Amino acid sequence: MRQIAFVLVALAMVAGIIAYMPSASGQINGEPAPIFVTKIPTGYRDFRFVSVAHEEDNLNSLGAVLGNDVAIKAYRERTLPYPDRTIIAALHYRHDPSEENNRIFGRSQSFVPGAPTNIQFMVKDSQKYAATGGWGFGHFSPDGKPGAEALMKTCFPCHSQEKARDLVFTQYAP
Amino acid sequence: MRQIAFVLVALAMVAGIIAYMPSASGQINGEPAPIFVTKIPTGYRDFRFVSVAHEEDNLNSLGAVLGNDVAIKAYRERTLPYPDRTIIAALHYRHDPSEENNRIFGRSQSFVPGAPTNIQFMVKDSQKYAATGGWGFGHFSPDGKPGAEALMKTCFPCHSQEKARDLVFTQYAP
Repeated sequence: MRQIAFVLVALAMVAGIIAYMPSASGQINGEPAPIFVTKIPTGYRDFRFVSVAHEEDNLNSLGAVLGNDVAIKAYRERTLPYPDRTIIAALHYRHDPSEENNRIFGRSQSFVPGAPTNIQFMVKDSQKYAATGGWGFGHFSPDGKPGAEALMKTCFPCHSQEKARDLVFTQYAP
Repeated sequence: MRQIAFVLVALAMVAGIIAYMPSASGQINGEPAPIFVTKIPTGYRDFRFVSVAHEEDNLNSLGAVLGNDVAIKAYRERTLPYPDRTIIAALHYRHDPSEENNRIFGRSQSFVPGAPTNIQFMVKDSQKYAATGGWGFGHFSPDGKPGAEALMKTCFPCHSQEKARDLVFTQYAP
């Protein structure tokens, strides 16, 4: 009888711990909690080319957007929403004038990637990242360190304005 | 005896024809003649990412430079000169403002690829393209038509000023 009581108490304790653990879908007691991408996806520098991006002003950024095989297939076939396992990488650099090119061209017109500024990712997993539209957002400094949580929290509100394109800004360049 | 004479005449004819044929190295009777890339290399849109390029002024161009496996290996290992079978592709688009991004960002800062303008190639074959530093240059309009010879002839004189980098302007973005 005492043995059964002990087992019941143990079970209740385990149940209590489970109730307080965030689930794989990023929920704590029913409250959705965003989960971020905190590990750089393997092999992203070998992903294929999606498009180019140039941001002026404070960002002063020249970037390339690459996609893994799932992403490239979805882009080419215009699949929406993007399927699970889609990974989109944005490689950002400073937008720097190329003195060498300008000298050869004979005028100031040429800009090339300067120092890398950051690498950003969107990883699709509709279960794991349910709290942020099925997308995990990631931001890494050039040395591989993930961005602070305050920064990470700014990704989704902005991307969520691109609902018609499943939160993806960058379109496929032919 | 008549048979031998026939063979000799035939041999002389063949030799005469060979003397007038441009050789594989692009020479006609010892005069170097540039050879251009007139067929778009297969699968270039799946090549891996090398770098990004932005040209202002008349060109108003936003582009991506991609490389085949031989090119990517040479870039990463800093191999100079680039080995035969290197293919470097430059995909050029109009440098257009993104009204959609700017609306969401709340300011005019974002530029994306507009209509494609051309695709250019450098193909390394030190024998075939000996007259132009071992590189075959190619230029194609978005519909796949090769550029006129007058245009093609302008590639080498400009690229030849990048001798220290084996005539390649674009460097590898990390």
